[in-house]
Amino acid sequence: MISRTTLDVRYVETDAMGIVHHSNFLHWMEVARTDFMKDGGKSYKDFESKGLRLVVIGVDVIYRGSARYGDCINIETDLTKIHARGATFFYRILVSDRLIATGHTEHLVTNTNGKSVSMPSEWLEYLQQIRSPQHD
Amino acid sequence: MISRTTLDVRYVETDAMGIVHHSNFLHWMEVARTDFMKDGGKSYKDFESKGLRLVVIGVDVIYRGSARYGDCINIETDLTKIHARGATFFYRILVSDRLIATGHTEHLVTNTNGKSVSMPSEWLEYLQQIRSPQHD
Amino acid sequence: MISRTTLDVRYVETDAMGIVHHSNFLHWMEVARTDFMKDGGKSYKDFESKGLRLVVIGVDVIYRGSARYGDCINIETDLTKIHARGATFFYRILVSDRLIATGHTEHLVTNTNGKSVSMPSEWLEYLQQIRSPQHD
Amino acid sequence: MISRTTLDVRYVETDAMGIVHHSNFLHWMEVARTDFMKDGGKSYKDFESKGLRLVVIGVDVIYRGSARYGDCINIETDLTKIHARGATFFYRILVSDRLIATGHTEHLVTNTNGKSVSMPSEWLEYLQQIRSPQHD
Repeated sequence: MISRTTLDVRYVETDAMGIVHHSNFLHWMEVARTDFMKDGGKSYKDFESKGLRLVVIGVDVIYRGSARYGDCINIETDLTKIHARGATFFYRILVSDRLIATGHTEHLVTNTNGKSVSMPSEWLEYLQQIRSPQHD
Repeated sequence: MISRTTLDVRYVETDAMGIVHHSNFLHWMEVARTDFMKDGGKSYKDFESKGLRLVVIGVDVIYRGSARYGDCINIETDLTKIHARGATFFYRILVSDRLIATGHTEHLVTNTNGKSVSMPSEWLEYLQQIRSPQHD
Repeated sequence: MISRTTLDVRYVETDAMGIVHHSNFLHWMEVARTDFMKDGGKSYKDFESKGLRLVVIGVDVIYRGSARYGDCINIETDLTKIHARGATFFYRILVSDRLIATGHTEHLVTNTNGKSVSMPSEWLEYLQQIRSPQHD
Repeated sequence: MISRTTLDVRYVETDAMGIVHHSNFLHWMEVARTDFMKDGGKSYKDFESKGLRLVVIGVDVIYRGSARYGDCINIETDLTKIHARGATFFYRILVSDRLIATGHTEHLVTNTNGKSVSMPSEWLEYLQQIRSPQHD
């Protein structure tokens, strides 16, 4: 299963080059990650309510094109790695069917004090279940 | 006493009009407020460490000009109202000596649960002391 | 006619108080303004393609409550003043049916050089037509 | 030569985890890049005034720690690759002497229409000259 997110470019997301500032792609990837986690019925808000956090420990983005105010953004999200202590997401960002960026975010599971912990098995199974079968 | 803050426009703060997006003026006013509170030796971080928050309950800004990437921003900050349960700050934002905006932020003192409380008398006296005498 | 906008709080919009930072309300009001202008078939992007800009010259917001990650935001937008050289929008921001903020943005019509100009009569008539009849 | 940038964490940069949101590291790296380019007497603003842009085509960041409101951030910046059509910057981000992140941004030189072009030799020589000699 691949999660799909749609959002409209906000004016504030553009910069003086007339295109979306590259940092906003990280905001969109976060929205896409929220949608991915919600697709099977649980949510990142539930995850946080257990005293857990999915802290970002790495990001990479390759920009292949640009987006402008008025564009509608589509994001395809999948979980490429998942284990009890962390996860890696992969994103494809498109304007219509034109690919403008691909990227990853790598995450560590922590408690509210930032200490690395394991997520409960129900959450690990949930995330294993909702990601694309190609990774099994 | 009026507090003075200097900062450089960041590229990310500009938008597709080629000028700084109006929402960033609120970020700058917040930096200026941090500097104002620090000017007499205490800081907003100390305020928060007492379990207190200075929550924003109102803002107004009049934009009289624009700022661009490369501009150096000067902000003059003063506290126009102060009482145990709240405060109002006033800001003048300039590019060199050209006034580009004036604004106010109104604040409520709360605890970490968002409940309105009084600030300790030492903080009230500190803030009364560091603001411009013209308001007494 | 009152325009309605729905959006989900993004994690990046929260701050260390655990609630949405007040500056993001200006981003949401901008999204709501975009939606308002689109409701009758034209768009702000069309407006810009005529060499026109609707520059923000004033904002005010009264914050009556807070929003958190996971909240769904509803915004009701109307145009309270409209003339050839400018416009004023009014916004009501809600979490479900709980009002958390009201605000205005005041705008000047300019060309791409920032000079005040009149909007074409077709645009003036369009905006007069799509706003709520209570203002007539 | 390595360029050094100092900046204070802004409250708006924090999120509900109580730490700086990971996307803001890209804003800081941009400020650091601006400072790096200015260190020898030219500036990115001058670069843009020639009709050139240094578009971001790739970013990667490894987060090794976190920053909080009140922290002072130090950034060390260097140019690890430079040729007429592009450049790669490397950044070390510290809170005092604690390393919290390292990252790269990769850039393409374009004209204002986004077409890949070569930078003038005076700019290429300038950038070659101000970077650390270890890369030669």
